[in-house]
Amino acid sequence: MHLKTIEWISTQKGSLTPGYARLIDQTLLPGQLAYLETDDIKTVWNAIKTLQVRGAPAIGVAGAMGIVAGIQRSRARTPDDLIRAVEKAGDYLATSRPTAVNLFYAIDRMKRVARQNRSLPPPAFKERMAREAVEICEQDAALCRAIGAHGSKLLKNGQTILTHCNAGSLATAQFGTALSPVYVAKEQGKTIRVFADETRPLLQGARLTAWELMQEGIDVTLICDNTAAQVMKEGRIDAVLVGADRIAANGDAANKIGTYSVAVLAREHKIPFYVLAPTTTFDLTLSTGDQIPIEHREAEEVTQGFGKRTAPANVKVYSPAFDVTPARLIAAIVCENGIARAPFGKSLKKMTEENS
Amino acid sequence: MHLKTIEWISTQKGSLTPGYARLIDQTLLPGQLAYLETDDIKTVWNAIKTLQVRGAPAIGVAGAMGIVAGIQRSRARTPDDLIRAVEKAGDYLATSRPTAVNLFYAIDRMKRVARQNRSLPPPAFKERMAREAVEICEQDAALCRAIGAHGSKLLKNGQTILTHCNAGSLATAQFGTALSPVYVAKEQGKTIRVFADETRPLLQGARLTAWELMQEGIDVTLICDNTAAQVMKEGRIDAVLVGADRIAANGDAANKIGTYSVAVLAREHKIPFYVLAPTTTFDLTLSTGDQIPIEHREAEEVTQGFGKRTAPANVKVYSPAFDVTPARLIAAIVCENGIARAPFGKSLKKMTEENS
Repeated sequence: MHLKTIEWISTQKGSLTPGYARLIDQTLLPGQLAYLETDDIKTVWNAIKTLQVRGAPAIGVAGAMGIVAGIQRSRARTPDDLIRAVEKAGDYLATSRPTAVNLFYAIDRMKRVARQNRSLPPPAFKERMAREAVEICEQDAALCRAIGAHGSKLLKNGQTILTHCNAGSLATAQFGTALSPVYVAKEQGKTIRVFADETRPLLQGARLTAWELMQEGIDVTLICDNTAAQVMKEGRIDAVLVGADRIAANGDAANKIGTYSVAVLAREHKIPFYVLAPTTTFDLTLSTGDQIPIEHREAEEVTQGFGKRTAPANVKVYSPAFDVTPARLIAAIVCENGIARAPFGKSLKKMTEENS
Repeated sequence: MHLKTIEWISTQKGSLTPGYARLIDQTLLPGQLAYLETDDIKTVWNAIKTLQVRGAPAIGVAGAMGIVAGIQRSRARTPDDLIRAVEKAGDYLATSRPTAVNLFYAIDRMKRVARQNRSLPPPAFKERMAREAVEICEQDAALCRAIGAHGSKLLKNGQTILTHCNAGSLATAQFGTALSPVYVAKEQGKTIRVFADETRPLLQGARLTAWELMQEGIDVTLICDNTAAQVMKEGRIDAVLVGADRIAANGDAANKIGTYSVAVLAREHKIPFYVLAPTTTFDLTLSTGDQIPIEHREAEEVTQGFGKRTAPANVKVYSPAFDVTPARLIAAIVCENGIARAPFGKSLKKMTEENS
């Protein structure tokens, strides 16, 4: 994938600041490939909120770059004032997507680096923050690549996977999480085919997953979400690969609404269900998925999501953005450090320890 | 429900012919309540094909009325020519929806009545055919009412059901099948709430089920298909009620794509899954559901179903119109003659014998 989902562009030779974030406006796909270029923190907040940038890892990168955008023109003269500006920017950006643990992770990392660099004069401090944001971006691509390398071991030549939502390249800086094994497998000479759930209400599967797989020359078939069970029953699916927004200590995984449904259906059809996510998605402070807060979306996304009203005016709508798949339905959780299997309480802890 | 989904309107006082079929154009709901009025058999064929009229029972009524439209202006002077015209019209209409057994049933009934009335002069013969079509329509409303009376025994005051697609009033002449128990329960003073799957690709749940339930003052909440599992997991659903297009001798039931998915999810959450359909839907010549042919729909319904392209151009799409729910997932099949339970091989046969 040569497309970069998000990157930082400097406007001054020899330094990273001042600069701006450049990201694919995913609300325009698949019809139009256009970039949002912004050095305004409110525009970054809005881009996260309105899903112009989405996918837990990419949101984390956007959050970090949003902080840089928010402070790079600050007139603060003292280190403490600059650190406060970073904290204020971070707290503001954290409100854009309450479920995205990667966003909080990236923001916390930026705040920590800010505090560690109290001694720098303002220009060097700003430059240091920009370098951290760029590193978060580059590390994400490397993490995803590693997830793909581990995950590809689970796939045999000629197999077909099913995926839900978009945990592909467009959800990260590059490569993706759930789709990374498919891309790596292709490099290894394996042919892996994909069935993609369209993923209502926002159709990330139809708009993004199908689009990026076609860009990569991967055989992809689009289905409505309610067709996954039938496709499984017909014996067409060898494995399910999905991403995650947040994973609790026991392995319960929050991901796009409908993921839990796919997990139940996979179990019924004896198909292994794999979650692929970086360890930054692990939130080991939560003992189970019950503690993961679930964001709810606007009714209009369901009733007139495509410019045309398709439900009665004022109909009640129930539209959680995420659901939690219980660990018992998950065959393995694949992260950049390897493949974790049940009991996840132990294996996830081990995976995160490898980071330190 | 005072709306009539389909009826025959005579244009001559004292007789049924000549006349025309008047049906709610369901492709315009929920935005607009408009009627298609036609005395042209090709227009009826097209109305069935394009889902202006849909739902197995309503399609059967439309088929019968389509035959009347096809022959009422025939210049045939011999009974045999008129019978041949009925047969030709019926064979033509049968090609509009290959899965709708009620359509074949209604057409066969019209052909049989035609042969039985060989002795009538042409005007009386045409009148007799029109009377049969009107009777099919009136009997359908009565059948649905009986299904509702039986089905309402399965519902307790304060319960919430989930339904998929539209097997409501709009799918029949009146009352519906899956929704009839909800309407009857309301008359009995019970409060039954409904969660309606939107039902991609054509959104019959959003456009039709939500609309007709709101017309009736029933508390309805619309969800995306992929949200049913979550709603069940949250303990919000007491029973699933769906219709059927065709039921095999062993109880396997073909219905709108996604029904099988809901059945698997209901089983996982220990929620009873009920199929409600008239005995005309039973096809006891088929030993299992494997023998039910499955129609496939156009890719465009998935890729640009809302007037706007939401998937890449030329993406492969897999879009079966129906799936088959195996009998083992069905708690009961409710028809106009009562409630059939496993083993269905016996109980369905008994239900149909009550017709003779």
